[in-house]
Amino acid sequence: MSASATSADLLIREIRADEFHRLWPLFQAVIAPGDTYSYPPDLTMEQACEWWTTPPSRCFIAESNGEILGCYMLRPNQPGLGDHVANAGYMVSPAARGQGIAGILCEHSLQQAREAGFTAMQFNFVVSTNNSAVRVWQRHGFTIVGQVPGAFRHATLGPTDIYVMHRYL
Amino acid sequence: MSASATSADLLIREIRADEFHRLWPLFQAVIAPGDTYSYPPDLTMEQACEWWTTPPSRCFIAESNGEILGCYMLRPNQPGLGDHVANAGYMVSPAARGQGIAGILCEHSLQQAREAGFTAMQFNFVVSTNNSAVRVWQRHGFTIVGQVPGAFRHATLGPTDIYVMHRYL
Repeated sequence: MSASATSADLLIREIRADEFHRLWPLFQAVIAPGDTYSYPPDLTMEQACEWWTTPPSRCFIAESNGEILGCYMLRPNQPGLGDHVANAGYMVSPAARGQGIAGILCEHSLQQAREAGFTAMQFNFVVSTNNSAVRVWQRHGFTIVGQVPGAFRHATLGPTDIYVMHRYL
Repeated sequence: MSASATSADLLIREIRADEFHRLWPLFQAVIAPGDTYSYPPDLTMEQACEWWTTPPSRCFIAESNGEILGCYMLRPNQPGLGDHVANAGYMVSPAARGQGIAGILCEHSLQQAREAGFTAMQFNFVVSTNNSAVRVWQRHGFTIVGQVPGAFRHATLGPTDIYVMHRYL
């Protein structure tokens, strides 16, 4: 990988449950520090796979030379009368940080969401101390529309606020 | 029922899936107008029952003389490192509105949440035009911590903002 990833470097494609095991090492590496996701430390692959691949949730991976560098999940944020708003969650391999992959994943997810008919996207749980993530989402059109005090038990910082972020598509 | 319900008038108790069918007519009556909940109009009892009674979700009903006048669902708002924050949703029978039942249910849920070890409660999807609900939650200590534009397709008002509301326990 070059120091700055481009869409051309990455093959982004949707996967189903049968390939989730390939993603699991990255998934575990991202949640292990307990600084960005609320997933429990003892999360099983089976539970993660169910959350990320069971319709209406859709799972996408970004590969370069057969190595998975990132992934995201796309789904309706609510059922029924709220299902025009998408929700997404992104992960980048710790070894592939600083290459712009989060932004590439975000753009890809926005396009997928548009094609699926969503008219907005909402993040429910952006950890407020995750500055790099907050900046990337802002650069891609999201604004902070809510702040919930202490909703995340950060592994090293303790009770930490989370942001709700939103943009139209 | 008297014009103003008291806790003494109501028996509030937890139910499991096997009793959910008794609650279903009220549930349907509440979601049918499409003005407060995002549940799809064609929601099945089976799906509703699963959402409201499958652990960690817990379902409570409020009865008076054997008639169900309201209900609520209590659960962690997030898994793992966010599971200290409770989430709840409340329904009051259209025939029993204006008797203070929502407030009684809310107080009951706050106590149940404390007893279960939660330290805060968050509502993710309070329809901003549902003034009576917003006032009740504010009276019971909740504040608006977020506002998502157009996240609810209100049956008569069209795209409508939703509030995120929060209180410590």
